[in-house]
Amino acid sequence: VQTGGISARIINSSIMEPLLSTELEFTRQLAQQFPAHPPVAVGIGDDGAVLRNFGGSDTVVVTDMLLDGVHFDLTRTPPELAGRKAIAVNLSDLAAMACRPTAAFVSIAAPKSVESEPFLAQLYDGIRSVADEFDVSVAGGDTNSWDGPFAINVCMTGTPFHEHAILRSGAQPGDSLVVTGPLGGSLQSRRHLTFDPRLRVAELLSGKFLIHAMMDLSDGLALDLNRMMESSGTGAVLTAAEIPIHPDVPTSLPAPDRLQAALGDGEDFELLLALSPDDVQQAVDLADDEHEFPIAVIGTVVESVGCRIKDEAGIIRDLAATGWQHFG
Amino acid sequence: VQTGGISARIINSSIMEPLLSTELEFTRQLAQQFPAHPPVAVGIGDDGAVLRNFGGSDTVVVTDMLLDGVHFDLTRTPPELAGRKAIAVNLSDLAAMACRPTAAFVSIAAPKSVESEPFLAQLYDGIRSVADEFDVSVAGGDTNSWDGPFAINVCMTGTPFHEHAILRSGAQPGDSLVVTGPLGGSLQSRRHLTFDPRLRVAELLSGKFLIHAMMDLSDGLALDLNRMMESSGTGAVLTAAEIPIHPDVPTSLPAPDRLQAALGDGEDFELLLALSPDDVQQAVDLADDEHEFPIAVIGTVVESVGCRIKDEAGIIRDLAATGWQHFG
Repeated sequence: VQTGGISARIINSSIMEPLLSTELEFTRQLAQQFPAHPPVAVGIGDDGAVLRNFGGSDTVVVTDMLLDGVHFDLTRTPPELAGRKAIAVNLSDLAAMACRPTAAFVSIAAPKSVESEPFLAQLYDGIRSVADEFDVSVAGGDTNSWDGPFAINVCMTGTPFHEHAILRSGAQPGDSLVVTGPLGGSLQSRRHLTFDPRLRVAELLSGKFLIHAMMDLSDGLALDLNRMMESSGTGAVLTAAEIPIHPDVPTSLPAPDRLQAALGDGEDFELLLALSPDDVQQAVDLADDEHEFPIAVIGTVVESVGCRIKDEAGIIRDLAATGWQHFG
Repeated sequence: VQTGGISARIINSSIMEPLLSTELEFTRQLAQQFPAHPPVAVGIGDDGAVLRNFGGSDTVVVTDMLLDGVHFDLTRTPPELAGRKAIAVNLSDLAAMACRPTAAFVSIAAPKSVESEPFLAQLYDGIRSVADEFDVSVAGGDTNSWDGPFAINVCMTGTPFHEHAILRSGAQPGDSLVVTGPLGGSLQSRRHLTFDPRLRVAELLSGKFLIHAMMDLSDGLALDLNRMMESSGTGAVLTAAEIPIHPDVPTSLPAPDRLQAALGDGEDFELLLALSPDDVQQAVDLADDEHEFPIAVIGTVVESVGCRIKDEAGIIRDLAATGWQHFG
């Protein structure tokens, strides 16, 4: 349940809104109430669920509900972009599991006031354009009208690019932490409506390297890193100077505020990876060669739980789920 | 988009609200905009989609969104029953495809006003009880709070009980039309909140007989029969006297009104089958033997498109999507 604190910005949360402790507790309760049993191999708590099919293949299922006034604001967001985002956030979840999308299921609650408008046609135009771009079939759904505001839920199926889906729970002490692009400023710049889900990067990296853990960054690096470390039973130390800051974060801001934007703004939809240190240089070289995606090595997985961040003076502080705490 | 006409009652519609012509047209447009392509074998337009997995198995996916004030009214429906219904309507869709449920994905938009209440715990209690009863894992979801009313979307995966999923498009002229229980009065009696999805009947019948077409009755026999016949490219003639009327329909009503209740009330969640006439007697005998589910043979599939109904005087009239038209 929404607990204030970070509510000044639009928040996209997979299970309840932050803060982390409330949210992790809620997820823990749900996972306890609903334990996975066959054919479900991975249930509540990752970017998606893994179902083991008769015949040996895996089906991965992800879902995200987006709400007017929470995840976008229809007074200033065209319906095409709302539809695009609803598909794209699910594609991002599948990228995070190293899966190719197969089918999308789109449920809509539309206010009666838009019945006479081209709203639905425009919404479906946005859905179709991104679905076509990433070759995913819209194979079903449920469209309703009501007296409430606009809500859209997308459920998407996928299949691993390579042997297996990659979970967020496999990080190992000694792993390098890597992100696939610069962070921060997504909401202010409205990049959160037009971002490209990192499916190609996920396919490429998961085909060449053994990725121990992966997830997509939807709620800010600080919170999402805490989630990955909690799932993996490990801790992390980030190096502040290595965290790539997106050009959408104004250069006029003081350095600590710019860092905080990268750690806490959210809706970046880049991937966070825990990669064997043996593979990191190769991954960086590959990224350089391809000139297509910049990857950055931002820290290390450690045994002792909790997340920390090392500043430019070498001082290590706790990294709260809300991000960098700026003292002065 | 909701088009009045039947809006005096709560309506559960898979794609927009009736009338049929508007809804069929909308579904046709969506199916045209989003053609199925591999691995999707069956896309928009049936109770669920069929995905053909690498390795030969099929995954069937269904989804339904339920909204406060449309599909239930939280001022008089306990959260447990809202949660139960959200799962049960999807189980009913899987029954209609002759599939065993495997996993459920539950997305919720909860009004901020319920944050401090046991609402969510009660909701999940209702979800858990029916999920446990039918052995389906809740394997993921998305829980949000907002300023709007309560909305819940459930997406569910399943796998065919036997070789294949059964579609609504396979009815053949000469088939007998069969329903798995009496119809009408579900909303008034609130049976729509507590019905049992017909999974066991679907498993039993699909294991013993070649069912040409099957769907669940959510919007009333008249509308849903029109959908099945439209999908199959066939027509139907019902025999009014054979349509089983539920005890929830008051016996004090005039006979034509009782018939109209069975044809048009909706939310019955019984199954409608098109069965080879060679199998019908055996199916009836089996139902008698099992003393568990009453099945009724209510009509015949014919070549000429459109749905008709024969009254007790032998007069045949068109059966509108809204049900029996009472002249007199």
